[in-house]
Amino acid sequence: MPAPTDPVARRAYELDRAHVFHSWSAQGALDPMVVTRAEGSYVWDGDGRRYLDFSSQLVNTNIGHQHPKVVAAIKAQADVLCTIGPPYANTARSEAARLIAERAPEGLNKVFFTNAGAEAVENAVRMARLHTGRQKVLSTYRSYHGATTTAINLTGDPRRWPNEFGNAGFVHFFGPFLYRSPFHATTEAEECSRALEHLEQVITFEGPGTVAAIILETVPGTAGIMPPPPGYLAGVRELCDRHGIVFIADEVMAGFGRTGAWFAVDHYGVTPDLITFAKGVNSGYVPLGGVIISDAIAATFDERVFPGGLTYSGHPLACAAAVATIVAMEEERIVEHAAEMGERVIGPRLREMAERHPVIGDVRGLGVFWALDLVVDRETKEPLAPYGGSSPAIAELMGAAKKAGLLLFNNYHRIHVVPPCTVSEAELDEGLTILDEVLALADAHTTAGAAVAAS
Amino acid sequence: MPAPTDPVARRAYELDRAHVFHSWSAQGALDPMVVTRAEGSYVWDGDGRRYLDFSSQLVNTNIGHQHPKVVAAIKAQADVLCTIGPPYANTARSEAARLIAERAPEGLNKVFFTNAGAEAVENAVRMARLHTGRQKVLSTYRSYHGATTTAINLTGDPRRWPNEFGNAGFVHFFGPFLYRSPFHATTEAEECSRALEHLEQVITFEGPGTVAAIILETVPGTAGIMPPPPGYLAGVRELCDRHGIVFIADEVMAGFGRTGAWFAVDHYGVTPDLITFAKGVNSGYVPLGGVIISDAIAATFDERVFPGGLTYSGHPLACAAAVATIVAMEEERIVEHAAEMGERVIGPRLREMAERHPVIGDVRGLGVFWALDLVVDRETKEPLAPYGGSSPAIAELMGAAKKAGLLLFNNYHRIHVVPPCTVSEAELDEGLTILDEVLALADAHTTAGAAVAAS
Repeated sequence: MPAPTDPVARRAYELDRAHVFHSWSAQGALDPMVVTRAEGSYVWDGDGRRYLDFSSQLVNTNIGHQHPKVVAAIKAQADVLCTIGPPYANTARSEAARLIAERAPEGLNKVFFTNAGAEAVENAVRMARLHTGRQKVLSTYRSYHGATTTAINLTGDPRRWPNEFGNAGFVHFFGPFLYRSPFHATTEAEECSRALEHLEQVITFEGPGTVAAIILETVPGTAGIMPPPPGYLAGVRELCDRHGIVFIADEVMAGFGRTGAWFAVDHYGVTPDLITFAKGVNSGYVPLGGVIISDAIAATFDERVFPGGLTYSGHPLACAAAVATIVAMEEERIVEHAAEMGERVIGPRLREMAERHPVIGDVRGLGVFWALDLVVDRETKEPLAPYGGSSPAIAELMGAAKKAGLLLFNNYHRIHVVPPCTVSEAELDEGLTILDEVLALADAHTTAGAAVAAS
Repeated sequence: MPAPTDPVARRAYELDRAHVFHSWSAQGALDPMVVTRAEGSYVWDGDGRRYLDFSSQLVNTNIGHQHPKVVAAIKAQADVLCTIGPPYANTARSEAARLIAERAPEGLNKVFFTNAGAEAVENAVRMARLHTGRQKVLSTYRSYHGATTTAINLTGDPRRWPNEFGNAGFVHFFGPFLYRSPFHATTEAEECSRALEHLEQVITFEGPGTVAAIILETVPGTAGIMPPPPGYLAGVRELCDRHGIVFIADEVMAGFGRTGAWFAVDHYGVTPDLITFAKGVNSGYVPLGGVIISDAIAATFDERVFPGGLTYSGHPLACAAAVATIVAMEEERIVEHAAEMGERVIGPRLREMAERHPVIGDVRGLGVFWALDLVVDRETKEPLAPYGGSSPAIAELMGAAKKAGLLLFNNYHRIHVVPPCTVSEAELDEGLTILDEVLALADAHTTAGAAVAAS
């Protein structure tokens, strides 16, 4: 898009191009949209155009933009105490830890705070290795765990490839994913039992006594929003128990309301040993992440020094934002609202669209956490963009949505519908109507669309 | 110390013990001091007792606690836009990048923002490896670079030991340190030339074509505040140039005023290829770190995707705090003040104390960045606490200082005098007077002290 004409926004754009190095990008071709303000489900660009944010940025603004109670809490904490070192105790840190532990499954009572998700994963793996005395960590293909060394080596997407520099002890396996089943299964029950059999075989051949942890996104996020079949996580829990392996549930994206529950594990009645979190805990208003720790693992470090830390562990401003976020989500029943919007509005609307749009191969999700798996052909399931890449069809769809005032989350051939947990029914209607329109453009790129055009 | 009697502070203490898992600690024995408020060079505990903060927390509150201009900027930004994803452009992010790049050496014009120092190091190493196509990174013994996987493997202190899980390509060498010379040197010039000869040999034997980067704390911080001798960094620069190695200056602790300059490299007239920063950039009021990137390395990623990122890269609230911090430091001449306090007050006072206290083996530093190397015996230079540990003498000294209202930074046998850059001459007098008194306790643990007691 052209640089903004508003002089303040234009200067932001020009300085950005001169001085800001952006994540996950070739820098030369960047043309970033200037965002000047945001509220609830909307953001505004440098020329005052409004966009409905169905991406929640990077799936982090669960409470929407600029929630007044969270903004007020940040300002109040800023007046009292912005920062204090990790050795001290502080009300904001203590209350945030309490509120998080109270919402976590029974038996996970301590919280180690980090700046965000990658460091949460780094520290969860550190705890698991030292607790078990073992080195290997098993994670899935089709996953994202962060970009620091251990986190990116655990990741199961192409962003790992340029970052592999000999870090040892990471093993990837296949999680359950019926639509593109790695196990040639035809039902969820079959996918579940075969996925567990596969994992059991991987553990056997890696050596159960060498495996410190299995880390799973409870519902894999960026990799495709694939809710696990009933029984899968319980099966993983059982395998971990049998072999003394630590079960790490990575809820950086899935936690804090995204799936219509405080934690995604709540849907499956499973208690992991460690839960990693970030994003939704305070909607990213101030950088914060962490690990929720089982009593057994916490006890390992009662007498033994935990060899990890960071300057801003339990940052008061970040923790005050978390306290206000959790309290507001509770008071305003935001988690329940997210569950209801998924069940009553988003799911049914997307499934109805799937009946009309041949480009939609699969609809998956729960809460405000949904994926459309877009395909060239429903029979072959050929993706609308290659693994790790994009395509003209996807670029056209994303461009048209943005032009119509809708920001979507895209990963390869998938579109994710991941609005804030606070999204209203009217906003969902507005956004899903635009989505419906732009999907028609993508239909033209399918074999069904080509057949129509040729007839 | 006993838990606070004030009920609010007492609850913070009790919830902390129940739910907060602390950095770098055995959790069972912790007895954290509750901090309820802070201002300038002071913090207050749960019972209202005031302490002079000569640690700047973890050497991060360079501008002091609760600087009104920074607090106001955080509150103003909170009202406009707390968070926005890394793909967008935003005034706070753009201005922070500009202000940082303008203060960096000529030719370093782009900034990649992270949440803090460890991720800054992770990303600097990523850039160096991809820019050079090589894997190995050389770092020094006696260093600290952070606690994520790559950062802790680069680290040259005992915190690395429990964190080594087969990460490949990290090689440690010895930096210059005349007081405990690894090269049997007797003058700074000799230490410098021998340290460079040693580094050259390490490069030769590792294979120059295999070395991606040399990372150095410009002035090593936690490891002992050892300003390099004149010519050393220029020599490292020359070795890097000769072999196509990236020179990373880690200024997470030394940057943004700590040494009495914007960057510690300014003292040595050397331009590294990458500078990592965090802490002082906004005094940790909101978590922020980053990498300042040379034009040559930035150009590597003009066409090629940079394979790293994070949800909060260029966080608006953190960047607004950095803008206000840098502007206030400029307006109030805080960097110049830090230089003057070091030269006119701290250095002379510590050197004068060294004449009277046999426990002081060495005084090193500049700006507001000073170390006392405490020894049992000045001849043998036996440290007052073992490497990686503490001792009754150190515990007694630290406890007495705290009781007298002074918070010091301690690492093994060293006491670091690292107040905020804004510390006043009166505060320095207050703190150094207490330090002088408690050093007398430590003197009793020296051979000289034992001789006096026996006589």
